[in-house]
Amino acid sequence: MLEVFVDLLSQPCRALIIFLTANNIQHTVHTVALRRGENRTPEFTKLNPMQKVPVMREDGFVLTESDAILKHLTAAHSVPDHWYPRQPQKRARVDEYTAWHHMNTRLHAAKVFITEVLTPRMTGQPVDDVRLQRALRDLDGTLDKLETMFLKDQDFLCGDDITLADLLAICELMQPLGGGRDVLMKRPRLQEWKRRVQSVLGDSFDSAHKILYRLRDKHTSKL
Amino acid sequence: MLEVFVDLLSQPCRALIIFLTANNIQHTVHTVALRRGENRTPEFTKLNPMQKVPVMREDGFVLTESDAILKHLTAAHSVPDHWYPRQPQKRARVDEYTAWHHMNTRLHAAKVFITEVLTPRMTGQPVDDVRLQRALRDLDGTLDKLETMFLKDQDFLCGDDITLADLLAICELMQPLGGGRDVLMKRPRLQEWKRRVQSVLGDSFDSAHKILYRLRDKHTSKL
Repeated sequence: MLEVFVDLLSQPCRALIIFLTANNIQHTVHTVALRRGENRTPEFTKLNPMQKVPVMREDGFVLTESDAILKHLTAAHSVPDHWYPRQPQKRARVDEYTAWHHMNTRLHAAKVFITEVLTPRMTGQPVDDVRLQRALRDLDGTLDKLETMFLKDQDFLCGDDITLADLLAICELMQPLGGGRDVLMKRPRLQEWKRRVQSVLGDSFDSAHKILYRLRDKHTSKL
Repeated sequence: MLEVFVDLLSQPCRALIIFLTANNIQHTVHTVALRRGENRTPEFTKLNPMQKVPVMREDGFVLTESDAILKHLTAAHSVPDHWYPRQPQKRARVDEYTAWHHMNTRLHAAKVFITEVLTPRMTGQPVDDVRLQRALRDLDGTLDKLETMFLKDQDFLCGDDITLADLLAICELMQPLGGGRDVLMKRPRLQEWKRRVQSVLGDSFDSAHKILYRLRDKHTSKL
């Protein structure tokens, strides 16, 4: 039986839960609340010495890193080929994006969220505007590349069908919404892409983002 | 015919060249000298709008990101299975490391090299010691994890045989040598691992590192 250890406020955890739900893969969810430090308990540290989520465990096999977990699940479970195509050149396109993702989409969208939401919460200080502007500029460069180098005139980041790349990317780009910020606001092409992604994912998308939507609503009501 | 676009002072380019040489994969090398800005020419930008190396091209198929290139080559060419095992759980271990690599081994070893070698060269200023100490501390954390969470009691990072993970990791950990710094100096377990990696790779390892060794020798003779 597949078990996953997640916190739905973590972007890659949402990608994992959406993937499992959208593909009807039976699993048990263990919530590891990062804000309560549940990732640093001795029990969780034994499972993942990195103290990070998500983690999967299946028949004694423990795996970390969302990118690796998602790819492994396409091999270990029966899911449509489009997620991580077996055809070598198509697969290489997904690997190309997921390698690029870490230091780009993930890093820069997360920095906006951290600067605008997490740091002020943890320190009680106002938002550092210089840092925020820099983070937004970096994210803007990433959004340009997503549009012109990955999406181009295709429907999805790696071709005509949805792959793990779209799933990982959209979950990162949603994160600043927790601070009331829609980073795709002035990006009609990426908005259309997002709509396409959401329409494939169906209810699993909104369901995994419920906690983030609550955070957004709390933030908006404070303004 | 496989063509690769590389600069041997770039860590992932060395990993690619070593892989091709060690596996006798026929290829043509195009040198893209980063220090002369050859990655920003219109011709190269057309090939890779990201303006980064390495890039591969084969029968019209252009691919970027070393991680993706290496994995693709194991599918497109006949190489021993150990590099990127087909068995799902073994493959997942390699994907787990390569996903972790970007924000850890690669980021932190590169920062040491940039702070100690590149920035002083480009600005004419002395080494920023505060930044360097911070970079070294971060790298130390990464080395701890490489030892205790990946290598453990195994011969290689992902098991009993060499994989793409070892190749990508060692090329990053060599980079600070360009500033005369051996980051494995006080790490006997990682030194032994390095010797095992080198012994599998044979001459291809030293050959790809020649330019880095020259940089190290220049640096050492200045002291």
